[in-house]
Amino acid sequence: MSFTFFTPGPAQLYPTFEKHLQTFVTDQLGSISHRSQQYRDIHKFTVDQLRILLNVPASHAILFLGSASEIWERILFSCVELESYHLVNGSFSKKFYDYSNSLNKYAHLFEKPMGESFVASEVVVPEYAELICTTHNETSSGVQMPVSEIHKIKQKNPSKFIAVDMVSSAPYPELDYSLIDTAFFSVQKAFGLPAGLGVWIVSEKCLQKAEYIKNQYSIGAHNDLPTLWKNALNNETPATPNVMGIYLLGKIAEDFNKIGVQNIRKETEQKAALIYKFIEKTTGFTPFVKDKANRSQTVVVANTELVSTDIIKAVKSQGMVIGSGYGKYKLNQLRIANFPATSLEDVEKLIHVLGRI
Amino acid sequence: MSFTFFTPGPAQLYPTFEKHLQTFVTDQLGSISHRSQQYRDIHKFTVDQLRILLNVPASHAILFLGSASEIWERILFSCVELESYHLVNGSFSKKFYDYSNSLNKYAHLFEKPMGESFVASEVVVPEYAELICTTHNETSSGVQMPVSEIHKIKQKNPSKFIAVDMVSSAPYPELDYSLIDTAFFSVQKAFGLPAGLGVWIVSEKCLQKAEYIKNQYSIGAHNDLPTLWKNALNNETPATPNVMGIYLLGKIAEDFNKIGVQNIRKETEQKAALIYKFIEKTTGFTPFVKDKANRSQTVVVANTELVSTDIIKAVKSQGMVIGSGYGKYKLNQLRIANFPATSLEDVEKLIHVLGRI
Repeated sequence: MSFTFFTPGPAQLYPTFEKHLQTFVTDQLGSISHRSQQYRDIHKFTVDQLRILLNVPASHAILFLGSASEIWERILFSCVELESYHLVNGSFSKKFYDYSNSLNKYAHLFEKPMGESFVASEVVVPEYAELICTTHNETSSGVQMPVSEIHKIKQKNPSKFIAVDMVSSAPYPELDYSLIDTAFFSVQKAFGLPAGLGVWIVSEKCLQKAEYIKNQYSIGAHNDLPTLWKNALNNETPATPNVMGIYLLGKIAEDFNKIGVQNIRKETEQKAALIYKFIEKTTGFTPFVKDKANRSQTVVVANTELVSTDIIKAVKSQGMVIGSGYGKYKLNQLRIANFPATSLEDVEKLIHVLGRI
Repeated sequence: MSFTFFTPGPAQLYPTFEKHLQTFVTDQLGSISHRSQQYRDIHKFTVDQLRILLNVPASHAILFLGSASEIWERILFSCVELESYHLVNGSFSKKFYDYSNSLNKYAHLFEKPMGESFVASEVVVPEYAELICTTHNETSSGVQMPVSEIHKIKQKNPSKFIAVDMVSSAPYPELDYSLIDTAFFSVQKAFGLPAGLGVWIVSEKCLQKAEYIKNQYSIGAHNDLPTLWKNALNNETPATPNVMGIYLLGKIAEDFNKIGVQNIRKETEQKAALIYKFIEKTTGFTPFVKDKANRSQTVVVANTELVSTDIIKAVKSQGMVIGSGYGKYKLNQLRIANFPATSLEDVEKLIHVLGRI
């Protein structure tokens, strides 16, 4: 039986994935040297396509690492000499904060319960905090922070660095990189690829800070920003990278660009509207996030009256896989991913099946 | 045109790779949750197959990271509070040493020119060094350190930790894990898989040391040993792993186990003997490593009279790809990988073509 995955990552693979994988195999790209022109061309293609897709200016590099979690660490090593500041409203923003503590930084915390978001007007960044860590899309709770609020925080704090976790939303958020110093995502979410690759967008100002810190403290040895940056100038990585992941990401980004990122965003909103409408009007379901402005367009979280694992089982028997609640919400919430890999028809079918439970 | 790759990594993909990849795609394993029983079963299968293949006892965990380079860093964070000691005879052993310096450890160095190896009797480990870093197979120079010498170093220094880089030789070296505290490799070499996964074999004693250090210093935030270990007990990883790489590695390790690791080692030696015999007796080629006992069985390095890039071009026109020399040896050396993915017939064909140049 073949399933359609509405899980928040790993997720449904993008429809063109198999075709691109076949080309990768046929062209023997799994065997090419990562120091060859053939590799550098692939690397550059992926960077160029992502630059177009996400409107990333030349001031920012696009770097490839093992995972978004690894990028949390590398951002903290690079941009924080002593103090960071974290907006925490779920498990993943909390982990970013935990990483800062693990690196023996002084991590300031502004925490809200799961399901709530932040507005710029309430954010007061401590004087000595060097980096503001925000999460555009909290995968655990389905809260999406409006991009305009993220931009406002930076405008209020122009001397601080700001980082945006868009792991489970890129390419949906339209970030303004004249304001955003660094952002990152992983490929097993909205890009519909197998896991194993994190993408780090990072400005030259962050590089300068990393170089400054490196003169005084260790900023780690593996994938430190100055070394990553130097290699990226030559379309390479310091260590042997996930060539397959980088190749496939470039191809999917190209597919997205052919559709047009604005069309992808529009379709994402249309599909999300359908799902939210369904859980609002259907007995047994309510949206977990009360404030409509903060409801995620890419990971919808619903409270359920029935035990959610029973719903998941019933939906699976109809060929669809949806996610359980996160952590303590495992049994009374559903998480429904709304990524480009699932079409409007897929979403309609899911709603139809959910409605009959 | 389809090529046979004799490059030292990324390398020829193992003949069963495509079949296993097809199963991965058909079974939609790229979409499964990394917190599901289905994932845990895959994870456990790969660990179990590697445990059989490499004869790894229960005292050691088998962990999955992004690359062998990442593992260098995690070993140093975990096993070295203040001082490490490095046997350096090429570019990769040198990088392991550089990583220690980058983490602000005091890194002791015993360096020899490329092409030379170490014997246990000449190794005097400084009193306060906590970890001895050895490289079983120097991919840059084609020097292989006999396993017996590595074991002897540990026997002479039982209170020190010993690490073995077997990136480009595993599963060839028959390590005795009652002596070896930690070892590691990556999958794009002798396992014939696309790059993007590093495997870390590490003992409970290293874990205890990591926990001890963590009480006093930062040992990093991402993939730190105590967190990796805790997750591994449940057949999981802290962050979303390269599920595809882990699945394929388990399948290839199973294939190796069906053949029998001793048979793979024997065939590796037979093929290496053919290549060394050829470069010894053929005008225009000489082995770079003078001492036969130290010649790598998995990465053969030959000095060439002709410019090696010309030889590489000529060989490529016959459907085979061989590696250039490393760094300053780029133009007057060849590196020929001898991994399980290339058969005796492939090697005979390569020798035939090289002989006609």
